[in-house]
Amino acid sequence: MRSRTREEVEQEPPITYQLDERVAVERFREPSVRGFAEDVLRALGASAEEARINADGVVTASLWWHPGQHQGLEKLFRYARRMRNGGIVPDARMTWVRERPAAALLDANRGLGYVAARRAMDRAVEMARRVGVAMVGVRHSNHFGIAGFHAKRAADAGLIGISMTNAGAEMAPWGATRPILGTNPWGMAVPRAGGRDAIVLDMALTQSGKGMMRWLRRAGLPMPDHWALTPAGARTTDPDAAMKGPLLPIGDYKGYGLSLITDILTGVLTGSLFGAQVFQDDENYDVAHTMIAIDIEAFMERVEFEERLERLIADVLGAPPIDPDKPVQLPGQAEQERARHRLKSGVPMDPKTVVRLRALAEDLGVPFSLEPAREPTPPQAG
Amino acid sequence: MRSRTREEVEQEPPITYQLDERVAVERFREPSVRGFAEDVLRALGASAEEARINADGVVTASLWWHPGQHQGLEKLFRYARRMRNGGIVPDARMTWVRERPAAALLDANRGLGYVAARRAMDRAVEMARRVGVAMVGVRHSNHFGIAGFHAKRAADAGLIGISMTNAGAEMAPWGATRPILGTNPWGMAVPRAGGRDAIVLDMALTQSGKGMMRWLRRAGLPMPDHWALTPAGARTTDPDAAMKGPLLPIGDYKGYGLSLITDILTGVLTGSLFGAQVFQDDENYDVAHTMIAIDIEAFMERVEFEERLERLIADVLGAPPIDPDKPVQLPGQAEQERARHRLKSGVPMDPKTVVRLRALAEDLGVPFSLEPAREPTPPQAG
Repeated sequence: MRSRTREEVEQEPPITYQLDERVAVERFREPSVRGFAEDVLRALGASAEEARINADGVVTASLWWHPGQHQGLEKLFRYARRMRNGGIVPDARMTWVRERPAAALLDANRGLGYVAARRAMDRAVEMARRVGVAMVGVRHSNHFGIAGFHAKRAADAGLIGISMTNAGAEMAPWGATRPILGTNPWGMAVPRAGGRDAIVLDMALTQSGKGMMRWLRRAGLPMPDHWALTPAGARTTDPDAAMKGPLLPIGDYKGYGLSLITDILTGVLTGSLFGAQVFQDDENYDVAHTMIAIDIEAFMERVEFEERLERLIADVLGAPPIDPDKPVQLPGQAEQERARHRLKSGVPMDPKTVVRLRALAEDLGVPFSLEPAREPTPPQAG
Repeated sequence: MRSRTREEVEQEPPITYQLDERVAVERFREPSVRGFAEDVLRALGASAEEARINADGVVTASLWWHPGQHQGLEKLFRYARRMRNGGIVPDARMTWVRERPAAALLDANRGLGYVAARRAMDRAVEMARRVGVAMVGVRHSNHFGIAGFHAKRAADAGLIGISMTNAGAEMAPWGATRPILGTNPWGMAVPRAGGRDAIVLDMALTQSGKGMMRWLRRAGLPMPDHWALTPAGARTTDPDAAMKGPLLPIGDYKGYGLSLITDILTGVLTGSLFGAQVFQDDENYDVAHTMIAIDIEAFMERVEFEERLERLIADVLGAPPIDPDKPVQLPGQAEQERARHRLKSGVPMDPKTVVRLRALAEDLGVPFSLEPAREPTPPQAG
């Protein structure tokens, strides 16, 4: 692997937006990707509604993100394995175990994480409309996918949404070497007027993730030195040296604190696993999520909020960029613009993923229906 | 100023805990500091209750933090100036302008920020006990002090507390040079059983603040290169070169997104100033805060929560440290331990602050009642 200086690494354009050109990807028409994902999930036992929600989640990840982030159709392999070993129960009967006017707890009964989180956020939205603000916890769930996807669900309904989840231990407490806490991602979404894209912040509480580190390793590229430590706790730019070490939190001890409290708000408070236990047993991930919905109209008339928000956004977007070629962006803007682009140019996938999807389809007796994108293709209605 | 390598900077012990020895401080007995702060606030027109709350805030900052962070009695000068120019209205009549079962909005009517935030959090606690979760916004307020202090108020009542505020523009949108957003600090606090210190995360959404940069400049020390940029947007380890540039957010674009959404949840949503406007007019800061309280018992029996939380904490604290001399700490642990130590050893103050406090006391006709700490002094009851 070619070693580069710190300066070279820093001059790198943002990594997640640029790697398509370095490791070849294949592109497929979005409707065929969505339909294929639904077919696979149906064949694994998901109900039609579940397949639709879960396919929407993984396709959104494929539209928003880099294949190296491994949140798109790559997730189907894990779902398939776990729907077969009992770790995920398709069409699970989820039950409301606690209910207060502004708080509720959903037992997902090992059902699909995307589905449990969707139901929880929808419930939070419904409650927040009645009482102003609401928080819904989910226990005994599975991988819930994109945090921002669930937060955006509230924004699509006109509310401010916050979603968070615990996750497998990959972050060490600040100053330690043993991973005890997860990347514990947060999504936060704010609706905008006039059909504009919502603000959607989607962030792990670590600087980056193992998925991108694996991609860089494969591409023979170094990583920034604040992503992860070696198992002994040393800084490194070699993804390989840090693959078994802890990921570094955002803001040093601050991200550690945020991750700890996120685990308390999700795993500890809902009755799921927490800390180093969550996500360890492939047959029982026992993940927890927490959804918060905030009704804007509990605080202010909507039209006034919208006008004020657009003024803030204008100031933010008007800030002079350091690099004149890179104007300021809103959180989620790149993702949503990329999604529109990919609806035309096709959904990028790692060729290795495509080979595995073909095998999975064959195994399930599902037609391999991914259609290669032809350039230029007309816009598709997602 | 001696220039040091990046490696030397990284080997520095955590700066906020180590500077006492580099710039001399004077130490005073805590009860005398508290009494003096109350006397000053009373002389400026605060009611007895307001003076008690506000003095508790600034004394807590002096007990928890480094004088260079400038959140302790140093804040009295600003409060005095603004209580005289009308920016802060002592004994202001604060009014509840909106009320829903889980949401409310308090108009602080330019009153003391510490007092408005206290009332808002107390209200959030009361509502959360009834409905499970509650969020209270505050508009037309002032500097609210320590975010963690207000979050801890909920934890002291047995709930999980979250507090946030907007602040003067010091952070640029990611990739830009012009500050539009504040450090917009968050406090998050979780109660523990058996009289143990609460977990208290208190964090600005920037890596550090101008206060510590000024202190380093005065001490002739460099700063880490991820704290702030020059006005042109270049990285630097020279605090002087960055004093007029933007502070850097935690987690790169993530902290920018968090700060933007915090300003939306506070300034935009409550009807206060937001973005680059807030904190600009010394006679009308018009700051906004948001307090969230979460009733643990809406989700789980308290005793079960406590047992689960202690298990997580044991795992976290048991993680092997990189440096054997620096065991893992919980968020807020160093601050609360330092406070207990300072109750005995005295409250450290910058000698320049002491000179100014003496002048302020004289000006207000208040006795200068700070009593120098004698080592060793017996513990004081705060």
